[in-house]
Amino acid sequence: MESSMDEQWASRHRRHRLRYRRRYRRRYRRSRSKVEKKCWSFSQTRLSMVAKHLATSTTTRSISTPAKPPPAPTFRRKGDYKYFLPIQTRWSDNDQYGHINNSIYYHYIDTIVNEYLIRFCGLDPLDKSETKPIGLVVHSSADFYAPASYPSVIEAGLMISKSGKSSVTYRVGLFEKKTDGEDDTLAAVVGGFTHVFVDPKSRRPVSSLPAQISEGIKALMD
Amino acid sequence: MESSMDEQWASRHRRHRLRYRRRYRRRYRRSRSKVEKKCWSFSQTRLSMVAKHLATSTTTRSISTPAKPPPAPTFRRKGDYKYFLPIQTRWSDNDQYGHINNSIYYHYIDTIVNEYLIRFCGLDPLDKSETKPIGLVVHSSADFYAPASYPSVIEAGLMISKSGKSSVTYRVGLFEKKTDGEDDTLAAVVGGFTHVFVDPKSRRPVSSLPAQISEGIKALMD
Amino acid sequence: MESSMDEQWASRHRRHRLRYRRRYRRRYRRSRSKVEKKCWSFSQTRLSMVAKHLATSTTTRSISTPAKPPPAPTFRRKGDYKYFLPIQTRWSDNDQYGHINNSIYYHYIDTIVNEYLIRFCGLDPLDKSETKPIGLVVHSSADFYAPASYPSVIEAGLMISKSGKSSVTYRVGLFEKKTDGEDDTLAAVVGGFTHVFVDPKSRRPVSSLPAQISEGIKALMD
Amino acid sequence: MESSMDEQWASRHRRHRLRYRRRYRRRYRRSRSKVEKKCWSFSQTRLSMVAKHLATSTTTRSISTPAKPPPAPTFRRKGDYKYFLPIQTRWSDNDQYGHINNSIYYHYIDTIVNEYLIRFCGLDPLDKSETKPIGLVVHSSADFYAPASYPSVIEAGLMISKSGKSSVTYRVGLFEKKTDGEDDTLAAVVGGFTHVFVDPKSRRPVSSLPAQISEGIKALMD
Repeated sequence: MESSMDEQWASRHRRHRLRYRRRYRRRYRRSRSKVEKKCWSFSQTRLSMVAKHLATSTTTRSISTPAKPPPAPTFRRKGDYKYFLPIQTRWSDNDQYGHINNSIYYHYIDTIVNEYLIRFCGLDPLDKSETKPIGLVVHSSADFYAPASYPSVIEAGLMISKSGKSSVTYRVGLFEKKTDGEDDTLAAVVGGFTHVFVDPKSRRPVSSLPAQISEGIKALMD
Repeated sequence: MESSMDEQWASRHRRHRLRYRRRYRRRYRRSRSKVEKKCWSFSQTRLSMVAKHLATSTTTRSISTPAKPPPAPTFRRKGDYKYFLPIQTRWSDNDQYGHINNSIYYHYIDTIVNEYLIRFCGLDPLDKSETKPIGLVVHSSADFYAPASYPSVIEAGLMISKSGKSSVTYRVGLFEKKTDGEDDTLAAVVGGFTHVFVDPKSRRPVSSLPAQISEGIKALMD
Repeated sequence: MESSMDEQWASRHRRHRLRYRRRYRRRYRRSRSKVEKKCWSFSQTRLSMVAKHLATSTTTRSISTPAKPPPAPTFRRKGDYKYFLPIQTRWSDNDQYGHINNSIYYHYIDTIVNEYLIRFCGLDPLDKSETKPIGLVVHSSADFYAPASYPSVIEAGLMISKSGKSSVTYRVGLFEKKTDGEDDTLAAVVGGFTHVFVDPKSRRPVSSLPAQISEGIKALMD
Repeated sequence: MESSMDEQWASRHRRHRLRYRRRYRRRYRRSRSKVEKKCWSFSQTRLSMVAKHLATSTTTRSISTPAKPPPAPTFRRKGDYKYFLPIQTRWSDNDQYGHINNSIYYHYIDTIVNEYLIRFCGLDPLDKSETKPIGLVVHSSADFYAPASYPSVIEAGLMISKSGKSSVTYRVGLFEKKTDGEDDTLAAVVGGFTHVFVDPKSRRPVSSLPAQISEGIKALMD
C-alpha cells in the first residue's frame, strides 16, 4: 500500500519536473485531449486519497479500525476555499533542490490568514493600547502533494475548518499559478493552524470571539 | 475542558513573559524553594497532557472512543531526544509580538534533521552525480506549548518516531536556553516531519533505505 | 547638517506612520490640495539629496572635495526603472517594530533580478549540464528612505546601472503599493548588487556575457 | 584589472569548493607546510585589496584621482573585531547553488548587532513605555569575498566604524567555522549598517546617544 502511494506521489513529482522544464522552453503542447485530462484527473483523485491516508497514518497513536472509514477529504480544489491572495515566490524560497522549501509554505499560510484578519476582522498588530485580542498559534500542520518552484506566483486560498469560543482553525490551500496562464487545479500544499485568541494584557483566552472577528470568520465557513 | 486548557496554556505564557522581563532586568530570584518547583512541574505535566489532547482534537476526522485512552505522550523532556544542536535565534525570527514566529520553528527542525543526515548519514545535497537518494517532505506538523524569543539560543533535540521501507518520520523538541545558565527542562515546541527518500533521477521512492542512512536512523531510535 | 537630515528623515517617517494608521481606519483625506502636494514633493527632493549625502558619507574613505559636487541622483522615481514586479509582503517580513525588516528588502531585490534573468535572459539555476554561466554576487547595498509594512504589496522596479565584460550591476527601487489605490511615487528603498558571471564548472568569470543575457541587460539600460 | 580580480576571486571560490568537498570526505591534509600557508596568505592580501577596489568602484559617482590612493582596508581579519557571536547556519540559508544566499548575511549582521545592543546597551524592543530610543537603519552594504555553506557555524565579529550624535555605523565580519576545528582566518563577508537612534514616540533623532548605548559603543571602538 505504502509503496503504491509512494510511486504515485513520485510519478506526480516527475510530471511536475517535466512541466517545469517545458515551461521555460516554451514548448507546451496546447492540445492535450480531453480524454487524457480525464485520466490524469482520475489518477490524481486516487493519489490524493492515498496520500492523505499516508499522512494521517504517521501519527503516533494507532487506532484499530474494524470497518474501513471513507477516505478523508483532501481539500485540494479551489472550490474548497473562500478567500484568495496571490503571493509572489522569492529567490530565497527555493532550497538546494530547486523547489520551494517546505517551511516556506507556512509563511504563505501566515500571510493570507493575517492579511484577512487585518483587512476584514479588525486585527491590529501595531495596537499599543492593548485592548484588542491577539491570536496565538497552538498547532500547525501541512500535507505536501506536489512541488512548486520560484519563479512563480502561489495563489493561496483560505477557509475556516473549525471555530470555537476562543479558537479558530484555518485551512489554506496553496496553488501554483503557471506563467502561461494555465492554473493548477489542485493544491500543491494543504496546511493550516489553530489560533487561540487571548487578551493582550492578561494573555488569557477571550471568553468569546470579538464581533468583528466572529463575522469575518463566519464569512469563510461552509 | 477546552477553556480549562486554554487558561493553563495562557498561564504558562504569562509565566514566560514575566521570566523574560526578569531576565533582562537581572533580577532573578535564585532561591526558589524545591517545593515550589515540584508544584510547578506537576502542573506542567497536566498542562502537557491537556494541550496534547486539544492539539490532536483539532483533526478533521472525529473518532468515537468508547473507553477513554491514556493521554498521548508529549515528548517535551530532553530525555526524549538523542541528538542535539544549539541554534542561535535571529533578529528576524521574532514577529511583531516579540516572539519567535511559529513558521520559524520549522526552519529549526529542517536544520537539525539535515545537519544530522549530512554529517552522519552520507546525505550530500550538492551531489550532482545523481546517485544518492534525496529526501522529500510529505507531511509536517508542530505543537506550540510556550513562546520563546530572540535573543536566545534554541537547543534542538532529535529522535526518530517512525521508520519504514523508504520513509522516516523525525520528531524534534525545541528548548530555549536561558542566558543565565538555567535551561528550560520542557520543550517550547515539539514538531517533526516525514521524509520519503527517492532516487534523484527517477524520483521513485527507494526500495530500501541506504545502509548509511539506515544506521544513522537506528542510532536515534528508542 | 546631519541633524537637519535626521529630522527630515524622521519627519518623513512620522508621515508614513500617520498614513499607515489612517489607511486601516479608512479615513483618508482624498482632497489634498495640489499646492500641498507640490510643497511635499519639494521637501522630498531635498530630503533625498541630503539622505543620499549622509549615506555616501558613511564610507570609510574620506575624500577632500575642493568644489562641492552636485547632489548624487537618488533614483527614487518610478520613471527611473524599466521592469516591474509586484511582490506580496509577508507576515514574517515585519520586525518587532512593525516595519519590514531591512534585510528583507534584499530578498525583494534578489527576487526581481533573478526573475528577470530567468524569464528574459535564459538563466537556468536548475541546469545540471553545467554549460550556462551562473551569477555570483560580490557586493550589495541599500539606502532606506521610508518604512513600509505588511500587509501591502511592494512594487519592485529594475534597471541596470553598470555593465562590464563579465559583471552587471543592478539597481532596484522598491515602492509600497497602497491598498486604497494611491501609489507611492517615491521609492521607500533603493538598493542593488553586482553580479559576476562565472562558468559553472571552472568558476572563472566569463570572457563576455552570453548573447541572451547581454540583450536582456541592454533592454534595461538608459 | 577587472579580469585579474575576477580570476583571483574565482580561484578563491574554487579553493573553497574543494575544501568543502574534502571536509565531508574527511580527507584533510593536516600537514600543509608553513611555506604554503604563507604564500596563500600573501595572495589573499592582494585579493582583498583588489576586491575592495572593485567593490568601491561600483558606486555611481566617479571621482578623478590624480594620485593613486593607498588600498582601502578590507577588515577581513578576526583581530579587526571586538565582540563575537557564533551563528548556526540553517538549511534554508543555502540557495539553489548550495551556498548561503547573499541576503541571508544581512540577517546575521542584524543578529549580532541587536544582540549586543540588547545585552550590553539596554536596548529593549519589547518596551511599550516608549521611553527608550529605537534604532532605524538608513543604509547597509556588504562585500562578498568567499562563499560559505550550511551546515556550518558562522562566527560573526562586531566593531564600530563610526559614531555620531545620534547615529552609529557597525561593521561586521562573518567567518565560517570549519567543523574540523580549523577556522577561517579571513572573513567570507564584511558588511554593516548605519543606525539612527530616534525617540520611539516622536521618531525624531535623539540629541545624543543614551549613556548606556554610548558606553557600549565605546567598548567596540578602536
